[in-house]
Amino acid sequence: MPRFTPLVAGLPSTVPFVGPETQERQRGQPFAARLGANESVFGPSPRAIAAMVAAAQDVWKYGDPESHDLRQALAAHHGIGAGHIVIGEGIDGLLGTLVRLLIAEGDTVVTSDGAYPTFNFHVAGVGGVLHKVPYRGDHEDPMALVQAVRDTNAKLVYLANPDNPMGSHHPAAVIEEMVAALPDDTLLVLDEAYVELAPDGTAPDLPIDDPRVIRMRTFSKAHGMAGARVGYAMGAADLIAAFNKLRNHFGVSRIAQAGAIAALADGVWLDDVRARVAAGRTRLARIATKNGLTPLPSATNFVTMDCGADGALARRVVAELGARGVFVRMPFVPPHDRCIRVSVGTEADLDLFAAALPLALTAART
Amino acid sequence: MPRFTPLVAGLPSTVPFVGPETQERQRGQPFAARLGANESVFGPSPRAIAAMVAAAQDVWKYGDPESHDLRQALAAHHGIGAGHIVIGEGIDGLLGTLVRLLIAEGDTVVTSDGAYPTFNFHVAGVGGVLHKVPYRGDHEDPMALVQAVRDTNAKLVYLANPDNPMGSHHPAAVIEEMVAALPDDTLLVLDEAYVELAPDGTAPDLPIDDPRVIRMRTFSKAHGMAGARVGYAMGAADLIAAFNKLRNHFGVSRIAQAGAIAALADGVWLDDVRARVAAGRTRLARIATKNGLTPLPSATNFVTMDCGADGALARRVVAELGARGVFVRMPFVPPHDRCIRVSVGTEADLDLFAAALPLALTAART
Repeated sequence: MPRFTPLVAGLPSTVPFVGPETQERQRGQPFAARLGANESVFGPSPRAIAAMVAAAQDVWKYGDPESHDLRQALAAHHGIGAGHIVIGEGIDGLLGTLVRLLIAEGDTVVTSDGAYPTFNFHVAGVGGVLHKVPYRGDHEDPMALVQAVRDTNAKLVYLANPDNPMGSHHPAAVIEEMVAALPDDTLLVLDEAYVELAPDGTAPDLPIDDPRVIRMRTFSKAHGMAGARVGYAMGAADLIAAFNKLRNHFGVSRIAQAGAIAALADGVWLDDVRARVAAGRTRLARIATKNGLTPLPSATNFVTMDCGADGALARRVVAELGARGVFVRMPFVPPHDRCIRVSVGTEADLDLFAAALPLALTAART
Repeated sequence: MPRFTPLVAGLPSTVPFVGPETQERQRGQPFAARLGANESVFGPSPRAIAAMVAAAQDVWKYGDPESHDLRQALAAHHGIGAGHIVIGEGIDGLLGTLVRLLIAEGDTVVTSDGAYPTFNFHVAGVGGVLHKVPYRGDHEDPMALVQAVRDTNAKLVYLANPDNPMGSHHPAAVIEEMVAALPDDTLLVLDEAYVELAPDGTAPDLPIDDPRVIRMRTFSKAHGMAGARVGYAMGAADLIAAFNKLRNHFGVSRIAQAGAIAALADGVWLDDVRARVAAGRTRLARIATKNGLTPLPSATNFVTMDCGADGALARRVVAELGARGVFVRMPFVPPHDRCIRVSVGTEADLDLFAAALPLALTAART
């Protein structure tokens, strides 16, 4: 056998998420409604699709390893310098590199118990020691995270705002207070994957050169380009430059870069998606309530629904929905695993969900 | 400042390759002929482009993290099980993960002095210690690599067949002998990025479950999809499964997966590309000879040309070609840096190269 590192030899073979395609292969037929991955069924701007179609003609060329044009567009959009932005293969790719920059075996990392498992996967992959803080109700608890950072001398702390899987969010001021309370040499990775879908006033106002924060954004959610694999991180120039020491320089597809530039330029489309997502959340909440579930407030493109019992029931609901062709997911960790998590879909998708949910609940409770 | 790991703090900020787009921005205008990145100007199969265009309509969905359909297609193509194949964001992405699987700080890795710098970049990124073996003439030296493995107790050894940047290759039997001579617990990473363009009999016949070899292939070269970012590795099932412990599971774009499946199915297109590449090599060799340069035999989509002097001259030739709108590269390390490396282009590209080369040589020699 090849000689794996001791760290790798000790890692589990579990993966953070089993994809819906795998589940479709297992059940022998596709899902009729794909509402489990918080994708944007409304798709990207038609201009982004057109840009990707055009880029496909030039796909024989490697993409620009500096993603110069996309970084310039993002810099203008955010009013910061391009040296504060690095592009990666989705937030997942960026989290993997970030963790390698800071965390050696035995270093402590703080996150919330039940927060994004792919972050935890990357921390485990470098031998970091995760310290998990409970949510406060259905919100991540910023000040408890800061306290845990102080208690453990953590180099890195993770917070998603808005949160996945609960859909909750903190207003900007809470995040700003959290950052102000952080030790100077601790980095907050602020995962803002859903921030374009959150109420105004959710994104904190932070100096871009604050060395204590790196913000992660993506074209996978509101921009509807999950399959293209493009996200970005914004932070202090030294930190952003350090990504070049480790990242896969040619890792971002030329097609994705072109699509992202076009998507960013189409604010009208984004506004329309926001409106459709808001309407979808309202309808999902109504469906939940009608079926005796409690919809949690959401600042994202999904609604987390409290099934009113334990994880075992929610798991059965997810399975019964799946058996009826409706793909949804659920939080992994108690007490959040009392819930199911349903992404906004088209009207037709939500019709299917509305029809399947009462049957799934009945079957799950039997 | 964030607390980088000591390893990262000590890494240089240099990157393996500066992209042609960066050079174009520096010179203020695009290159007229892009012959420096060993891309395939002939592009992918029209069927692959059509598949990517179709997939762009569905880009709101994440790609299958298991790349199931592509792995099945590759398994059928190679006559092996899908469990022996992992898909990644190009060979670069796969090399980065492979190195992390095996190499901890201080572990030794063997490669050839002047071989693929991105592999060296990834080894440095995990703190591996590179032991470099000289080429024998313009060929990597398999038995010297094996000897270095034995001398240094290396866990990992890199060989590209065909070789980049020299374009040389070994017949299958030489690689088979090399593998037979390897210690049981050393892994050969056999980079076969160009193998579809090499003479028949270049790819060795090796049992897929031999734990001493992992083979890397790509859709970036003969298949003409460099900008899509998709490659694959083939090896023993345990080794391939271990990639799941570290890889970015959702890192391969949905569009790239669809394009790769279609590209693989179009053998007629691939044969046509092979013929056009062979014709291009012949013409490049003729242009070289006509200008007093010595073209080296090539089993790839580029021709390496001996300028007959030292690295300083070749660097000037590359710069003077660039100033005339022709992007080429050159080997990094003596004695190979006496050469320039020119990718096969369209007839129009090669016309430009033929016109620019004598002027560039004159300017470089002045």
